[in-house]
Amino acid sequence: MSPDHAYRRLLAIYRERALLESCASLIDWDAETYLPAGGVELCAERQALLARLEHERAIDPEVSDLLAQAEAEAEEVRGEDDPLHAANLRELRREHDKAVRVPVALVEELARATTLAQGAWEVARDCGDPAPYLPCLERVVRATQEHADCVRGAGGRYDACLDSWEPGLDDEGLARLLDPLRAPLIDLADRAAGAGELPDLMAHRVAKPTQRALVRGLVARFGFDFARGRVDEAAHPSTIRIGPGDVRLTTRFDTSRPMAGLYPTLHELGHGLYDQNLPPEQFGMPVGDVPSLGLHESQARLFENLVGRSRAFWRFFLPELQAAAPAFGDLDVEAAYRSVNRVVRTCDRVGADEVTYDLHIALRIDLERALMTGDLVVGDLQSAWDEASARLLVRPRDARTGFLQDGHWAAGMFGYFPTYTLGNLTAAQLHRAASDAIPDLEDHIAAGSVAPLVEWLAGSVYRHGGALPAAVIVERASGGPIGTPRARRRRRLHRGPRALVVGCPTQHPTAAVRRGTWR
Amino acid sequence: MSPDHAYRRLLAIYRERALLESCASLIDWDAETYLPAGGVELCAERQALLARLEHERAIDPEVSDLLAQAEAEAEEVRGEDDPLHAANLRELRREHDKAVRVPVALVEELARATTLAQGAWEVARDCGDPAPYLPCLERVVRATQEHADCVRGAGGRYDACLDSWEPGLDDEGLARLLDPLRAPLIDLADRAAGAGELPDLMAHRVAKPTQRALVRGLVARFGFDFARGRVDEAAHPSTIRIGPGDVRLTTRFDTSRPMAGLYPTLHELGHGLYDQNLPPEQFGMPVGDVPSLGLHESQARLFENLVGRSRAFWRFFLPELQAAAPAFGDLDVEAAYRSVNRVVRTCDRVGADEVTYDLHIALRIDLERALMTGDLVVGDLQSAWDEASARLLVRPRDARTGFLQDGHWAAGMFGYFPTYTLGNLTAAQLHRAASDAIPDLEDHIAAGSVAPLVEWLAGSVYRHGGALPAAVIVERASGGPIGTPRARRRRRLHRGPRALVVGCPTQHPTAAVRRGTWR
Repeated sequence: MSPDHAYRRLLAIYRERALLESCASLIDWDAETYLPAGGVELCAERQALLARLEHERAIDPEVSDLLAQAEAEAEEVRGEDDPLHAANLRELRREHDKAVRVPVALVEELARATTLAQGAWEVARDCGDPAPYLPCLERVVRATQEHADCVRGAGGRYDACLDSWEPGLDDEGLARLLDPLRAPLIDLADRAAGAGELPDLMAHRVAKPTQRALVRGLVARFGFDFARGRVDEAAHPSTIRIGPGDVRLTTRFDTSRPMAGLYPTLHELGHGLYDQNLPPEQFGMPVGDVPSLGLHESQARLFENLVGRSRAFWRFFLPELQAAAPAFGDLDVEAAYRSVNRVVRTCDRVGADEVTYDLHIALRIDLERALMTGDLVVGDLQSAWDEASARLLVRPRDARTGFLQDGHWAAGMFGYFPTYTLGNLTAAQLHRAASDAIPDLEDHIAAGSVAPLVEWLAGSVYRHGGALPAAVIVERASGGPIGTPRARRRRRLHRGPRALVVGCPTQHPTAAVRRGTWR
Repeated sequence: MSPDHAYRRLLAIYRERALLESCASLIDWDAETYLPAGGVELCAERQALLARLEHERAIDPEVSDLLAQAEAEAEEVRGEDDPLHAANLRELRREHDKAVRVPVALVEELARATTLAQGAWEVARDCGDPAPYLPCLERVVRATQEHADCVRGAGGRYDACLDSWEPGLDDEGLARLLDPLRAPLIDLADRAAGAGELPDLMAHRVAKPTQRALVRGLVARFGFDFARGRVDEAAHPSTIRIGPGDVRLTTRFDTSRPMAGLYPTLHELGHGLYDQNLPPEQFGMPVGDVPSLGLHESQARLFENLVGRSRAFWRFFLPELQAAAPAFGDLDVEAAYRSVNRVVRTCDRVGADEVTYDLHIALRIDLERALMTGDLVVGDLQSAWDEASARLLVRPRDARTGFLQDGHWAAGMFGYFPTYTLGNLTAAQLHRAASDAIPDLEDHIAAGSVAPLVEWLAGSVYRHGGALPAAVIVERASGGPIGTPRARRRRRLHRGPRALVVGCPTQHPTAAVRRGTWR
């Protein structure tokens, strides 16, 4: 028997789980894109079965024994000399200890309930009537609460939710990171709005096929490999990694608001580049996956905002847009740049500017925490949402523009929203480090190339897979832990409020916000 | 414990198998439609895993015990009073006895090899170079031979292949049915070709979006429920039943040959209506599935030919076509009808007329039987194909129009081709019975409605699911076993060769062929 017999056997079992998850991911993708309405129930049964099979493999007593053996083997034979080995074992232990607390029936129920609720959510969102969706969401809330109760140990339910997406994050840590942002963000949004609302210069009608061709071209030019991926349309943009060689983005288009197709696509592109560049040889091992959703979102927000809302991007992209859609003929780069950086309080998170975006997240965090603790029930969700939205942003005119806009809760993704703000913080930090490492980064982007940026990200982030915790990856790449800008950046904060004026020609208006968030 | 405890437990295990198969079917559909090239290998691993999990459930020793108990229970308690119960048990026994002979590793290998070969086939077909595909096909041939050797018992390998698709059919039975057709078909094709080749009046250019809209409209009008199904495009048309509520057709379009999109779609519509109308409450039980592929193909060929190539169909459809594609403005119904019924020896099976179609099948049967016995090796397949095609039809000008045109063998579907001819025979018989039962059937079709036909098929065929063998369903529905036309039909055969003249205005030219095949 080889000295790492138990470890190898563990990885074989994990690989089988990864294949089951690959099946489930494909079924997820199908549910988001092409599944006919009549197939939703069967889809839920398929997902329940796959979730059970995966869970059975995670909690198998054989795995307990193998883990103990593998840990002993590692002590004896390898020590610290193989970091992948150590990281795999660490993650297998973490997952196993968590999984054994969750009954099989609950895992099935979660898979079933979330699939059904997502189907119901899509219908509710299309027709604007939340009534038939509410019981489905209630079922998801109940199952997620139960799941959190199983795994939370001494922590609260919301701690358990956070840990699912951002390992190690708890509610207290989240508060430490995000609470200081709230007042400054609200203040900033007030001041930016006070600068007077600019018209949306980008709101020309562009036919969907034209938009499709444009963003497809952009995504390909920015390095997304269509031989190993796809872009389709869905009710909610997302990125699904079926496995190495198969990464699928979804996006959506709005004829009268072409930017509502562009920015979500750039967001998913950031995810997609990360997923396509994870080390393929580590697929089917814990270290082959991303270490945290916050880090994943940082890649998305980086491409969406720090690339896509930059002046350099618009130098390259405006002529492309104008060639495809002559209605944009009158715009110049400066006007386009200002327009896509307008700060406006709206109801729409996905389309939100960088200043108000994290207010959308704050709203969701408050509500989902309350849903988890039981302080808020699903029946009161719409009114609670509307009130909170009126306070932080604006009052939604209906359920569709209000609490029905996001499908995360239908999918059981409670505790996911904070990773967007975490991603915003991390994105700014990584972008700064990349800009330092690539002095002519802006010129490249202005010439339509993000290749040097992607290369830097590949070396600093992608290549690690899940071998290091996200915090370590970010610290190594940027020189400081998440939320700590370097000194010379901090200094620039004191330039004063001029930087906050919307569309200010000398400064990316929201770059200041991101720095501001680190205070 | 309930008196049918063992039976219920068996059905629960079978239902899990059906869900695994539903996953595999969805993955199949994806592979045929949207899977990026880079995802093929992982797709093969997913299919291998699902095939193994399904097989493990089929051969589980628990199933052996339960089957014996359930058979005893049935003797004691139910006797013959529940035909579904009896049919389920019969089928479970048949499947189990077959499955236990096949090693798990071979089941995995078959799933893996066929997925990889289908990917390679698509590439080969696109670029016209068979070289990289041949080793993949060889691997499939080897695995299929091994599989046949496991299950064939005293029969030959090809017997085992036939039985996979048409339970109970062996090579001898096939010969009895099909051998008498060969000489008359060749003779008929000669005579029809002797009548002079008519120009293809349907070969106008029609943009793909127009074709898409047209066939989508047609498929919906003919009763395919888009709330419980889809139509997508693929390299090879097919119908995949993911389960009740989710039936997916694929088709393909050729800008310069719109009929190459219409007829395959009508073919798949026939399959799709059958699949959508199987008793949904029996999903996950053996009786919930179709009893044979020959019967399934009969539905496809019925809609493709007996509906779609009829004068009545063209009365309704020509104005629709003309409205969408003005290039058809000069045609009249009679000319369209004649044109879609031209008898021409070509290389193209899917596009073949009814006279030459079964020659395409004969060619494939000879070659696949030889591949299975080992008399033909994959390396010699192309030359063997070209020679046989030159003898029966015409010599292909390249691999793409020759042996690369069909993906069945890549998918391991040896023994499937005969079901098309079986389907042709059955379709004629069922259509005759339906015409007798619905005297104004042609008028309905000419008015654009197949509702009475579908209703008759639902009552005569669909509703049985797999509760009865195909032969019994056909006999009950048509009054005679497959291959036995009723006397008054036989009499009309003696009208003489006039009926064979292509485009003859008084008779559907190939109706005579189908009857002729029964002599």
